[in-house]
Amino acid sequence: MTGPGPGSPLGLHRVLDPPGVLPQAAWRLDASPRLWPDEVRVAVERLNLDAASFRQLREATGGAAADMRAAVGRIVADRGKMQNPVTGSGGMLTGVVAEAGPDSPLGLAPGDRVATLVSLSLTPLMITDGLADWDGRSEQVPCQGHAILFGRSIATVLPADLPGPLALAVLDVCGAPALTGRVVSQAAARAGAAPPVVAVLGAAGKSGSLSAVAARQAGAGRVIGVVPSRAEAATLRAAGLADEAVIADARDPVALAAAVRGAGGPATVTVVCVDVPGCEGGAVLATADGGTVIFFSMATSFTAAALGAEGAAADVTMLIGNGYVPGHARLALDLVRREPGVRGIFEARVSEGTGDGKAKT
Amino acid sequence: MTGPGPGSPLGLHRVLDPPGVLPQAAWRLDASPRLWPDEVRVAVERLNLDAASFRQLREATGGAAADMRAAVGRIVADRGKMQNPVTGSGGMLTGVVAEAGPDSPLGLAPGDRVATLVSLSLTPLMITDGLADWDGRSEQVPCQGHAILFGRSIATVLPADLPGPLALAVLDVCGAPALTGRVVSQAAARAGAAPPVVAVLGAAGKSGSLSAVAARQAGAGRVIGVVPSRAEAATLRAAGLADEAVIADARDPVALAAAVRGAGGPATVTVVCVDVPGCEGGAVLATADGGTVIFFSMATSFTAAALGAEGAAADVTMLIGNGYVPGHARLALDLVRREPGVRGIFEARVSEGTGDGKAKT
Repeated sequence: MTGPGPGSPLGLHRVLDPPGVLPQAAWRLDASPRLWPDEVRVAVERLNLDAASFRQLREATGGAAADMRAAVGRIVADRGKMQNPVTGSGGMLTGVVAEAGPDSPLGLAPGDRVATLVSLSLTPLMITDGLADWDGRSEQVPCQGHAILFGRSIATVLPADLPGPLALAVLDVCGAPALTGRVVSQAAARAGAAPPVVAVLGAAGKSGSLSAVAARQAGAGRVIGVVPSRAEAATLRAAGLADEAVIADARDPVALAAAVRGAGGPATVTVVCVDVPGCEGGAVLATADGGTVIFFSMATSFTAAALGAEGAAADVTMLIGNGYVPGHARLALDLVRREPGVRGIFEARVSEGTGDGKAKT
Repeated sequence: MTGPGPGSPLGLHRVLDPPGVLPQAAWRLDASPRLWPDEVRVAVERLNLDAASFRQLREATGGAAADMRAAVGRIVADRGKMQNPVTGSGGMLTGVVAEAGPDSPLGLAPGDRVATLVSLSLTPLMITDGLADWDGRSEQVPCQGHAILFGRSIATVLPADLPGPLALAVLDVCGAPALTGRVVSQAAARAGAAPPVVAVLGAAGKSGSLSAVAARQAGAGRVIGVVPSRAEAATLRAAGLADEAVIADARDPVALAAAVRGAGGPATVTVVCVDVPGCEGGAVLATADGGTVIFFSMATSFTAAALGAEGAAADVTMLIGNGYVPGHARLALDLVRREPGVRGIFEARVSEGTGDGKAKT
């Protein structure tokens, strides 16, 4: 069953309020199951809330299962999508293709098990089970219902050789290693430049560990992993993903800059993969003049970054971490297949049900 | 009279609350007049509120002179700096150097008329005249009081050949043309690339007009100026700053992308100089794959930009507009001296007392 007219590949035809904006910017989407000709409907199995959103929900509700279920259910019922109104972020989902419209360009067929690589914050979603199987303690939310993919909604068939929750956790942050690798390889290719020093804030987390490995593969001369605790430093050292693991609070700009300097910095490229606010100034101070900061954390403040750099008279290039880089899913999955250290970090995080850093939002 | 110990070049010794953060991120600064050895005290003549902050204050208070004075006065009394708590932004100031500490590296002497090139949001400030000479209708605020410059607080002596308010307005946005020029010249230098197409959103404003001229000088093959009204299109055409002036609402992504395409786009480089929220999606859609968006507007949402690009599967590089680029003040002043079209736009804006786009925040 498909709608009458042609759909917009960006999903504009699903925007109810306010009209004319893109689905990500909309307050409310039409999540009805009937497809436009270029859409795909997915029977949802699991939502993966992004780290910033999950943290906010837990703090706002206290974290009890019933309260967490009610909070997510209310957002989805109100908005037709899982976009946390406080953080603006969402997450991603996995499920099975139920129906593909005749004009869908995504190449998916009914029965395919897929993960969405576009954010839940722009994906029409309807929940039908009240999230009854969710204990509220994990970002990964068992869920029944349906979701809609537009013509330009990137999705990927889940790999057969990796457990589903592991693959989902990897795909969730797959933009970070792809963009880090691109930026580091550009820095490494600069004529006459020394191999770049790369600092990864939150290097023992999901997006951080992948970014550290991607940086090394892209030609980093030295990878400095910054972590908040001795336990994470031990994890990072055991995984062998960084040349040095240093402990610093990324929200303390002076301490962070000193720690990175002491480990061989300042950094040519600094990658921010911690999901707490207030890391902008430290990231700027830890970076060499002429260097680049990539912000993947959804807790990043645009104003704080722009003014922090200006206030320190720091000539650094600051990138907004774009979650889409061509080939990002394959790159990230291959890194996890090949690097036991990264895989170990992901398996531990998945079994704990805890997250970090840039999640698909 | 200078304080006992050495100061931090970043001004950490002036942070009262919370301790340990950079002055820009602090809630409250110590604005007392006694100098640390590397500081400079300026007798303030005029504050230039950034556009986003001014707009917010006007909307929140209704805009009456007494209410505007009270609002700004309260912020400065509470925080020891003029940082709008809603927008996070500030502005800049001009004044006369009253005292320079013996260890100040800024090269300023008592009597120099200067403009600060770091944001008011990190500059200790005390107001002594209740802003009695301000009518509340202009971003340029006559003011008596003092401000403190740290060792790394960039300031520039005001040029003798340009009227003060004009120079202030130019310096306020001088980071935008410098960074635009750098990005466009990098795009133009790319091996085998056609001369880049540059779209400037808000091209008839202050930062926009400077950015358009800087783009052309840096090797743009085509400059597309996007403006919201016929009146601004006429201004832009008369000034001769763009190859084409098109009218579109930057908050309407589909209309904006269509307008830029119709004028010779999509853009290799898109420069966002409009100070209203909601322009992220349109800027991304107006940009070619592999292109770059530079966000100068302090109304930019980090999350909306990151997710907007991801949601559209758009492989674009997104830059946070850093207000500091070496040589930015001289570059911007020279553009205004040489380009009568830009100078005309600034003179009209200064006499109207209205602003736009990226202000020093």
